[in-house]
Amino acid sequence: MDNIKVIQWGLGAMGGGMARLMLEKKGLEIVAAIDLDPAKVGKDVGEVLETGKKAGVKVSGNPDEVFGHVKADLAIIATGSFTKEVFPLIEKAVRAKTNVICIAEQMSYPAAQEPELAEKINRLATENGVTVLGTGINPGFVLDTLIIALTGVCLDVTKIRAARINDLSPFGPTVMKTQGVGTTPEEFNKGIKDGSIVGHVGFEESLHMIAAALGWQLDEIKQTREPIISNVYRETKYVKVEKGNVAGCRHIAHGYMNGKPVIELEHPQQVLPNLEGVNTGDYIWIEGTPAINMAIKPEIPGGLGTIAMAVNMIPKVIAAQPGLVSMKDLPVPSAVLGDFRKLGIAK
Amino acid sequence: MDNIKVIQWGLGAMGGGMARLMLEKKGLEIVAAIDLDPAKVGKDVGEVLETGKKAGVKVSGNPDEVFGHVKADLAIIATGSFTKEVFPLIEKAVRAKTNVICIAEQMSYPAAQEPELAEKINRLATENGVTVLGTGINPGFVLDTLIIALTGVCLDVTKIRAARINDLSPFGPTVMKTQGVGTTPEEFNKGIKDGSIVGHVGFEESLHMIAAALGWQLDEIKQTREPIISNVYRETKYVKVEKGNVAGCRHIAHGYMNGKPVIELEHPQQVLPNLEGVNTGDYIWIEGTPAINMAIKPEIPGGLGTIAMAVNMIPKVIAAQPGLVSMKDLPVPSAVLGDFRKLGIAK
Repeated sequence: MDNIKVIQWGLGAMGGGMARLMLEKKGLEIVAAIDLDPAKVGKDVGEVLETGKKAGVKVSGNPDEVFGHVKADLAIIATGSFTKEVFPLIEKAVRAKTNVICIAEQMSYPAAQEPELAEKINRLATENGVTVLGTGINPGFVLDTLIIALTGVCLDVTKIRAARINDLSPFGPTVMKTQGVGTTPEEFNKGIKDGSIVGHVGFEESLHMIAAALGWQLDEIKQTREPIISNVYRETKYVKVEKGNVAGCRHIAHGYMNGKPVIELEHPQQVLPNLEGVNTGDYIWIEGTPAINMAIKPEIPGGLGTIAMAVNMIPKVIAAQPGLVSMKDLPVPSAVLGDFRKLGIAK
Repeated sequence: MDNIKVIQWGLGAMGGGMARLMLEKKGLEIVAAIDLDPAKVGKDVGEVLETGKKAGVKVSGNPDEVFGHVKADLAIIATGSFTKEVFPLIEKAVRAKTNVICIAEQMSYPAAQEPELAEKINRLATENGVTVLGTGINPGFVLDTLIIALTGVCLDVTKIRAARINDLSPFGPTVMKTQGVGTTPEEFNKGIKDGSIVGHVGFEESLHMIAAALGWQLDEIKQTREPIISNVYRETKYVKVEKGNVAGCRHIAHGYMNGKPVIELEHPQQVLPNLEGVNTGDYIWIEGTPAINMAIKPEIPGGLGTIAMAVNMIPKVIAAQPGLVSMKDLPVPSAVLGDFRKLGIAK
């Protein structure tokens, strides 16, 4: 049996991590890698990832050439957060009859904010006999798929609350900016207004995925983004937060049904929450019959979780029916610890 | 669109609960009910379940007559714990081209202890174009499916430990007997030897399901069943436990790979653990990259969880490919809170 052949599109922090992981796995090979960064193009993937050995695949800056010449089972697309950005990339892969896993946050449930593009992707994928999945740690797992799975033990559910309380300290300048870390309260409010401070990308997607899985009809989604004001001085490698300034963004989303909030998702993202006694973790509370009270402490690390999920879903996407799917449609995720070829089923 | 038509086979504590739940749900109807108890046969299902209103379906004691005359989409079989016991029932349903959900513990992964019957069920189901699923709270979810789902965020896993610490107090005399509650330590050891005290049914199934999902090859399974000696007097409606006697059975199973224990599942079942400060809960610890530390407190209630899971899986089983499947093969479970017909996809 041939190895599963993968094209890795995007070799940043996430995509690079996926490539590194795939190089260690059995029954799977990277047959091409695409990245537009001139510092990477033309170099061996192993060199770019600093693995200490050659991967035998050179990074290409020309997607058309790759899809014109390389036949692969699946492409992982790890280049951006928004469906609009990644749509042309997905289209290129799908037209080359290549299954797609994409970690753009909006792609976890693209019908939420881009219903026309979602419809287009579904039609293209179906016509070309391949499957397109959006995934990641969040959206993609903690605040949607895991919640959905836990409701499986419930006769009834009246309300869902969940929180992902994490520590942004490992992240660099870009994330500090989009979360408003280190700003004054005034700068934070201005950033929220002008769109430079965005909070979490993915709440609309998680809310719609949960509702669709349970058969709920949401009639409204409300979101709030508030500054987490620090009572102490906080400092990381990338940012300094004075006492009284902003340590991060408390982003909360409510899904309403018949005028009542039925889903409440909270994602306060800040640097060094432990300095004020905040324990990081992933929490899910389901009000219903029975009630469920789940905690994962500390929280599942975002970077590692996204890298793992994208690679672990490969056999399930290859085996799935053609079309655009979401995590709620596929078999439960699972780590692939043996040979990838033994866990996939031919379409 | 027609309602989904279900035959409920078995109206005991579990099956009766499922029927009660289905009577409240939309897009689904019970078209027949089977139970061999003469006290139930001939009565309306609503009367047997004491719902206060007629269901319009009489309990039959004759399965052949039911499957000969009633066309249903799916049969729920809730009559026993072992694959051998339920095999003839599954065969009857499948030959009538009816999908099956069965809560027999061994059916959660029948290949573990009954590989020949599993093969036979798979062949029969495939030939008749229907799907057969075994499920329940445990085995079926807490100590297998939920563990599998959490490994999805892992690059690597070196060891899995999990514990389901529950309170047997609500259960009646049969469960007290099979868990040895109220016995002296000598009686307990004798009961383990002669097979009258069995502990948990389902460890082999959970271990094999986890291993199959991850691509691990287990070379040995070892199980221990120890008495939980009570340091205090404990009393429930059904049993009295003197200080120094047995409050329950601590049943532990280890799955070995290459001579090393890689999966450890623990299920200490006792009455009133809180009297000695034991907090009930479901716990999963994954050693790997990243490590995962999950707790659900208190534990998901076994009875409600099993009832919910069986009913909630109906649309997914109807939509699945024909054959014998396990929870790891189907989409993540989810509560059905809307119309059942909107969540199923035609085969």
